[in-house]
Amino acid sequence: MASMDFSHHFSDKNIPFGIASSPGHPNPQAVTRVGNKAIFLADLQENGFFGESEGLSKGVFNQKTLNQFAALPRTEQQAVRKAIQDKFRQHGLEGFPSGSQEDVTKITTHLPVEIKDFADFSCSLDHVTNAGRIVVGSTQPPPSFFKFPIGYQGRTSSIVVSGTDIERPMGQFRNPSATAHGEDAIAYGPSQKVDYEVEFAAIIGKPLPMKQRLHAKDAEEHIFGFVILNDWSARDIQGYEMNPLGPFNGKSLGTSISPWVVTPDALESFRTSASPQQGKIASYLSHPKPSTYSITMEVEILSNSNATKVGTCPVSSLYWTPPQMIAHSVSSGSALRTGDILATGTVSGSEEGSQGCLLETTEGGTRPLTLNDGSKRTYLEDGDVVRITAVAGEGVGFGDCIGRLTPSRSF
Amino acid sequence: MASMDFSHHFSDKNIPFGIASSPGHPNPQAVTRVGNKAIFLADLQENGFFGESEGLSKGVFNQKTLNQFAALPRTEQQAVRKAIQDKFRQHGLEGFPSGSQEDVTKITTHLPVEIKDFADFSCSLDHVTNAGRIVVGSTQPPPSFFKFPIGYQGRTSSIVVSGTDIERPMGQFRNPSATAHGEDAIAYGPSQKVDYEVEFAAIIGKPLPMKQRLHAKDAEEHIFGFVILNDWSARDIQGYEMNPLGPFNGKSLGTSISPWVVTPDALESFRTSASPQQGKIASYLSHPKPSTYSITMEVEILSNSNATKVGTCPVSSLYWTPPQMIAHSVSSGSALRTGDILATGTVSGSEEGSQGCLLETTEGGTRPLTLNDGSKRTYLEDGDVVRITAVAGEGVGFGDCIGRLTPSRSF
Repeated sequence: MASMDFSHHFSDKNIPFGIASSPGHPNPQAVTRVGNKAIFLADLQENGFFGESEGLSKGVFNQKTLNQFAALPRTEQQAVRKAIQDKFRQHGLEGFPSGSQEDVTKITTHLPVEIKDFADFSCSLDHVTNAGRIVVGSTQPPPSFFKFPIGYQGRTSSIVVSGTDIERPMGQFRNPSATAHGEDAIAYGPSQKVDYEVEFAAIIGKPLPMKQRLHAKDAEEHIFGFVILNDWSARDIQGYEMNPLGPFNGKSLGTSISPWVVTPDALESFRTSASPQQGKIASYLSHPKPSTYSITMEVEILSNSNATKVGTCPVSSLYWTPPQMIAHSVSSGSALRTGDILATGTVSGSEEGSQGCLLETTEGGTRPLTLNDGSKRTYLEDGDVVRITAVAGEGVGFGDCIGRLTPSRSF
Repeated sequence: MASMDFSHHFSDKNIPFGIASSPGHPNPQAVTRVGNKAIFLADLQENGFFGESEGLSKGVFNQKTLNQFAALPRTEQQAVRKAIQDKFRQHGLEGFPSGSQEDVTKITTHLPVEIKDFADFSCSLDHVTNAGRIVVGSTQPPPSFFKFPIGYQGRTSSIVVSGTDIERPMGQFRNPSATAHGEDAIAYGPSQKVDYEVEFAAIIGKPLPMKQRLHAKDAEEHIFGFVILNDWSARDIQGYEMNPLGPFNGKSLGTSISPWVVTPDALESFRTSASPQQGKIASYLSHPKPSTYSITMEVEILSNSNATKVGTCPVSSLYWTPPQMIAHSVSSGSALRTGDILATGTVSGSEEGSQGCLLETTEGGTRPLTLNDGSKRTYLEDGDVVRITAVAGEGVGFGDCIGRLTPSRSF
């Protein structure tokens, strides 16, 4: 897949966390990234880089996931990030042992956390209004939309790291060419409507036991960091299966996440007011100063190595915020675990060109897009690469979340 | 909670697996059960009980979950079960070191596996017909019911072992006393409609990587064993939230499972033909000899220590079988992991008294039940204990899956 230079996303203001391996570091371990260099954190710790921090147990970075680090008190995570930041600001890359650094083109990134539960929400009013109009002919959002962030649990075993191929799934759906309403009205075959969904996702650090619950204002401290998430969706499979229990196999073909977990500290200076909320909401969801982040996501389709931007999606336009998603998810007494992922659902704005999925952008396939190579798209074609990027502001971004759609194989 | 004698469920024909601790065995480890004795398997292995089995790595039973054992080849699991069975048949309990045995009243059982994904299905035609009539006034099953087992992903962090208290959840729902259709039509408070659901669940042993898929006839070899599952449901929260993304918080108050995983080998002699299926089904779901197990589940409500049987639910009446649930769950290319749980949804039969939840038994609360202590129930009351048992036949059962509903606490 075409690689792009994202060094400007990873200035010393960012200092994200991830998991990587390389020929020189065959065992996956915790890493950070500055510019185009990955810095292997277990190497740093072995060199005494972090000093005698009591909370930072030996080997915390020498793990194949970030879960142990993500479960530490926020102050410990902040101390690690600050130590790296300070050293870089004083000495540049010279401040780090040369063996601990590798060019990002030489590393393999892995899933940053062992994911426990994955919940996906419907936080964008524009998305539900658009999807409702296209799918069921009603611009009225679902009845509970303004009461809480509507969510469902997703398959965690399908979550893969950016760069992993996604296979066009087989499934059952209404046969678009069937005239009969009998048996043959339902086809079993390769999905004809594979879509992406541009999403923003929080990864839980500090856990919460069952039966505790949270107010939205207290939920933020449970966030370890954020990633880009592409909730690949087979619209035909999803459409046929989701009545009445919600999406299942139509969302289980693969869910890609970006490899670099960007911390709340890195995003703090990009905080902005959340969208105004309508009507009275339950106490656990209300927030004295509702805020979110000013983050712009972009999605491109790469066809024949030719990139076409197909959406520019503002995270700040979401109706519900990540702390509200978290507070709602535990409101009936369930737990949070380190490594849980809570995603916003499709990030769509109200402007032309700000929709986060093809269902919306092509009006359910009725208004094909023309790509820069001259080809047209209603839904994705085999071989298409979808690249989602996200930028908070100068020096702080998420890199990309990328995946290629490969053909269905018979079964 | 009132304890019952289930020794007759655990003859030498059963030999299930679980995880337990006790004052004499403070670290949870793998156990089996014969009659009313738990036998600690790490003790047996340390004593050389299992001989020089190559596949049985040292310490496989000295774990706080069965996942490592469940991932072994079926033949290894069978050899362990047979070694225990043979010894018992020759020597009775004398065949096991006395230190490895404890009375089941002296042990604490734990979740038998670390659960990865949890999917819950809608396998009972009677349940969907009844629930449809009660909730939306239509006895027509959802459009896809006869095409595949409709399923959704559940919260895994809410799964608890039998004996754990379940707290009446807070949540948002249509206010039954509201006359207005404005803001106050939606209440935030303790659920007024807490229900149980009698379910039968398969636990995955042998994993399956992504993009492999399975035919139903090949899915059975991925089952490590079965448990009873109580999918506690807050009907009012569920009813308001599930349009359009399915159940979420209404099912996350707690999901109880029985502690003893009963193996497919123990159930083999109780195999029976599955319900006949209507119409043409996709190739991956069709099975040359569709079969299930003849298992009778019973549910009781204990109120003031007085037990009332409120349902007798036949697993054999389910329209879809466990191998079909598994094949469907991986049909779009997703994985199976050791420790995944796939549950059948409410097990309801067609006869009076065979419904597996109060929603059905009380016709949505319109036909209260009278319990043996003279009190009436539409839904559960605080302090009620729900006990579900399951029996395959002489000497082979699941014990019970029990839980007490405790009052909501303010927040």
